[in-house]
Amino acid sequence: MYIAVVGGQLCTEEEARAAYEVGRLLAERKAVVVCGGLTGVMEAACRGAKEAGGTTIGILPGPFRSDANQYVDHAIATDMGQARNAIIVRTCDAVIAIGGEYGTLSEIAMALKMGKRVVALTTWDIANRGVPDDKIVRAESAEAAVETVEASVR
Amino acid sequence: MYIAVVGGQLCTEEEARAAYEVGRLLAERKAVVVCGGLTGVMEAACRGAKEAGGTTIGILPGPFRSDANQYVDHAIATDMGQARNAIIVRTCDAVIAIGGEYGTLSEIAMALKMGKRVVALTTWDIANRGVPDDKIVRAESAEAAVETVEASVR
Amino acid sequence: MYIAVVGGQLCTEEEARAAYEVGRLLAERKAVVVCGGLTGVMEAACRGAKEAGGTTIGILPGPFRSDANQYVDHAIATDMGQARNAIIVRTCDAVIAIGGEYGTLSEIAMALKMGKRVVALTTWDIANRGVPDDKIVRAESAEAAVETVEASVR
Amino acid sequence: MYIAVVGGQLCTEEEARAAYEVGRLLAERKAVVVCGGLTGVMEAACRGAKEAGGTTIGILPGPFRSDANQYVDHAIATDMGQARNAIIVRTCDAVIAIGGEYGTLSEIAMALKMGKRVVALTTWDIANRGVPDDKIVRAESAEAAVETVEASVR
Repeated sequence: MYIAVVGGQLCTEEEARAAYEVGRLLAERKAVVVCGGLTGVMEAACRGAKEAGGTTIGILPGPFRSDANQYVDHAIATDMGQARNAIIVRTCDAVIAIGGEYGTLSEIAMALKMGKRVVALTTWDIANRGVPDDKIVRAESAEAAVETVEASVR
Repeated sequence: MYIAVVGGQLCTEEEARAAYEVGRLLAERKAVVVCGGLTGVMEAACRGAKEAGGTTIGILPGPFRSDANQYVDHAIATDMGQARNAIIVRTCDAVIAIGGEYGTLSEIAMALKMGKRVVALTTWDIANRGVPDDKIVRAESAEAAVETVEASVR
Repeated sequence: MYIAVVGGQLCTEEEARAAYEVGRLLAERKAVVVCGGLTGVMEAACRGAKEAGGTTIGILPGPFRSDANQYVDHAIATDMGQARNAIIVRTCDAVIAIGGEYGTLSEIAMALKMGKRVVALTTWDIANRGVPDDKIVRAESAEAAVETVEASVR
Repeated sequence: MYIAVVGGQLCTEEEARAAYEVGRLLAERKAVVVCGGLTGVMEAACRGAKEAGGTTIGILPGPFRSDANQYVDHAIATDMGQARNAIIVRTCDAVIAIGGEYGTLSEIAMALKMGKRVVALTTWDIANRGVPDDKIVRAESAEAAVETVEASVR
């Protein structure tokens, strides 16, 4: 099970704590954490996963593996800028979104386009032509988020 | 001036009319229409541009130029699936969104991430952590949409 | 007919002359010149095409259309570095190679992988496990190169 | 140390043995094996690495992780066709080429373009404008190949 944890390079403390907890819980369930490899939510999720003995993959926008945060086990240097978001989403079985800015929104959108489950803690709300879109499943806690993605994949 | 017109492969008649009108008006202003090259909003915008003597570029997700709709002058076969959305947005100066599904939302999100103006007729509403995001500029008509992108680029 | 003209950003005067001539002859045959959009062979081919009233497309490695040489009609900003070579080759019907460095060799290789005709003036020679590979068709002149690609595509 | 092992999906028995040995020796040196994730040389290298307790990454051309051979630990689904070759090369510190067809040649060329060391057992010979290019370092054995890349990276 590969779960993408997506969110901003900048995030609130609360989001960092949630990302850390999501990473930890995913690792306990033997899920691989896939992310964009940078700071903020990505780094917190990787740190959580590593502290629980898990595995982390960082798919980077730039040309250098060394851009990855220190909790990334396996860094992929795409040198493809934002197009790397498509690879993150393709590679995972489901997505957990935490906060996030426009890059995160693009990942959520591509995941939904590809028919993959997206579970969110704090994140974007989206409405299509005035009608709220409920495909983003809301979770009240890191535990709930991880349980929901696990149920959707298994 | 390169303006991306983004929207669904499937669209309402009203959206097709709006896309046609946007394409026509862009062509009259000598703007090149950039799009995903397929059907629906993309085809309608290209048809409008061609009937006004304009130029259209279709950046396709698949490996074959022949997938482009008949109003695409220059087809680019990326064979990169959803990652081609990033190329559409990189290549344009600003985006006009009309209706659209998740692919369109990913293009809007990447355009905002890259700091490019996004003007929308009917489309997605987005709110970040509960706060409506007003970066997507709403336009009431094709004319207004084209005037707004033109003002933002010039 | 879309023909990619591939070659180095730096080239000899003779190669620039050949690229110019190839561009001109392609334009006279109503073929669109597709290239990497930068200097050297790419620029010379585009200039030849434009002086004969043709159309040129430059598929750029970086994020800015403004990186294109002045003879590119339609610039595509991929922001994908070397991966853009795959898009050049996917988009064309056949390739004419002129001189070139490693980037050109990667384009030749991908074109042969995709089953597309590669015609070369001065360029790389390749041998697989000691056996010369004759899939790269040699041409003695710009005229011969253009005639050969045209015959292969039509 | 990330070393890309590149070669054909179809390969000779001798090449498969060499790839297996290269994978094993890389794993013994704690190098991560990066490859295209499919069969042939890629699979043999991954199998060698896994039997020596190493780690393997497969960067796939298609949209499904399940396309990876069974010895890939971490599969990346790019859905980018041949453009994924650029990611393999970007991600590694150096390349070992074994036999191979046109896809392998494109990887060799991009690695040289990016200034990365390429060591080859049986593989392509290349000559630029009639002059043999000696940037591809030849190795007589799997041991020699691994020692050479290690020396170049460390």
